Amino acid sequence: MPEIAEVQEIKDDYPTRREKEKIFDRCDPVVYEGFQGEIKHGLNKEALGSYEENGFMLFPSLFSKEEVAVFLEAFKDLIQSESLQTRDEYVTEPESGALRTIFSPHRFSAVFDRLSRDRRILDKVRQILGGDVYIHHSRINIKRGLEGKSFPWHSDFETWHAEDGFPRPRCLSACIMLTENTEFNGPLYLIRGSHKRFVSCAGQTPQNHFKESLKKQAYGSPSRAAIARLVDEGDLVGVYGPPGTLVLTEGNIMHGSPDNISPRARTNTFFVFNSVHNLPAPKPFGAGRFRPPFLSNRDYSPLEAVASERI
Amino acid sequence: MPEIAEVQEIKDDYPTRREKEKIFDRCDPVVYEGFQGEIKHGLNKEALGSYEENGFMLFPSLFSKEEVAVFLEAFKDLIQSESLQTRDEYVTEPESGALRTIFSPHRFSAVFDRLSRDRRILDKVRQILGGDVYIHHSRINIKRGLEGKSFPWHSDFETWHAEDGFPRPRCLSACIMLTENTEFNGPLYLIRGSHKRFVSCAGQTPQNHFKESLKKQAYGSPSRAAIARLVDEGDLVGVYGPPGTLVLTEGNIMHGSPDNISPRARTNTFFVFNSVHNLPAPKPFGAGRFRPPFLSNRDYSPLEAVASERI
Repeated sequence: MPEIAEVQEIKDDYPTRREKEKIFDRCDPVVYEGFQGEIKHGLNKEALGSYEENGFMLFPSLFSKEEVAVFLEAFKDLIQSESLQTRDEYVTEPESGALRTIFSPHRFSAVFDRLSRDRRILDKVRQILGGDVYIHHSRINIKRGLEGKSFPWHSDFETWHAEDGFPRPRCLSACIMLTENTEFNGPLYLIRGSHKRFVSCAGQTPQNHFKESLKKQAYGSPSRAAIARLVDEGDLVGVYGPPGTLVLTEGNIMHGSPDNISPRARTNTFFVFNSVHNLPAPKPFGAGRFRPPFLSNRDYSPLEAVASERI
Repeated sequence: MPEIAEVQEIKDDYPTRREKEKIFDRCDPVVYEGFQGEIKHGLNKEALGSYEENGFMLFPSLFSKEEVAVFLEAFKDLIQSESLQTRDEYVTEPESGALRTIFSPHRFSAVFDRLSRDRRILDKVRQILGGDVYIHHSRINIKRGLEGKSFPWHSDFETWHAEDGFPRPRCLSACIMLTENTEFNGPLYLIRGSHKRFVSCAGQTPQNHFKESLKKQAYGSPSRAAIARLVDEGDLVGVYGPPGTLVLTEGNIMHGSPDNISPRARTNTFFVFNSVHNLPAPKPFGAGRFRPPFLSNRDYSPLEAVASERI
């Protein structure tokens, strides 16, 4: 664990939520050196280079159908847990009241705890981030057929920096698809290479912004001109794959998601990993106070890998 | 021209806007025999069979870049026409007030008049519909970057039958892409093969429904269960292509469109052709009165083809 002193006085290299929008270059690496532990399911040099360049990486069907069936069963148990339904971690659709997101599945389910530390994920994550990591937050999202709505373009790191105090973009998301992701069912869209720019967004963060932002992003949203510029520099990419696909996305990559216009629900699990060398600053960089722990975990204990058991 | 007597008493084989939703089989052909005129740019038997089976057909880059440039220039002239801006044919976005659709471009522009009768389109249309056709309506749609919204699943024929009095689905749409269509910019999505079913929609048509329906479809919308059934029978298909691509879609095929989540506008032209053997009944089948002529043209004169001149 780093000393607290390390994070006491931190210069803000990624100012945001100011008066005017600005775009500037990322001043940190994407791939970090230094992880000393055992790596069984790591990335070779070419793969690391691709991740560095593009800001994301796909591993189609990394988890087997049988494993995905276990994950879905565990998800069903979570959905049916009455004690969970009254908690903040249980987020519903504004209109229908149907379940939309369960936060912190790794805290409520041994299956998702194990998945969050599976070597097939964790080896890659620790290799990229150059050392130990902890879970910033985790969630399972259902995007319901003909109901799940679009989510506008944003960088997660912009939020994690402004509202959660991450000093630097030394973090990433691992998404495991529990159902097929296609262009029809509200997949992840991203701008290739956009993780190398930082869009400093205009506007102050309102109090308790997170309550609204879970359902609709309003602050921390880049302008159309900023998105157009990033698209000119990169490409729009749709992230599609069969159930069991792992997607790693760099914390600062610009991404969004369209409506689910198909009749079937699309379900994905996310684990967001932050480096223990990037612990939150004493206060957020662009908000009056921190978001609650289910959105920004305060337990920074390094994760311990569990053996990978493909069934 | 058919005799008026032909269309005086018409049995309703496609009842809709009733109390309960129903799905039943199409009782009409998709491809019709009988066109006697000259065909220079027609479809062979295999292509006709594919259209019959799938309910749509793509002709990538059928019009050259140079031709598309002419169409876009003519569109710009229409946009800048002050007399058009005050007309019903000029439809704007509810929020920004920006242009969304120009109806009847073939009436206001010699370029679009010519395009509507170009043999590369008209030969195919008359061959499929088995005889002379007229234009039910035409339009140019701009789906603006980060602004253009989704359009839910529907069958055009359901509307044309209920609100415009088309007795049968002997009609189709020809779409010419004026900009590239991708999954990111609000393309056409359709359910392959769904033209062989008819979804009789629940609910009565309100007065002046068309004013709202231009901006947001509310009636004539199938349930989630109906869409799920059609998707089980067919497939979801995204219609993508470069500028100049022609897409023919059968009048009864179930289709929709997602948000334009890209930063760039997507522009398409549509001509809807109806057979002169399918003239509107004396009153609509599912509404109190007809929609206005710019949405449902009253001039049933058969179109005369003009030579195709690829530049």
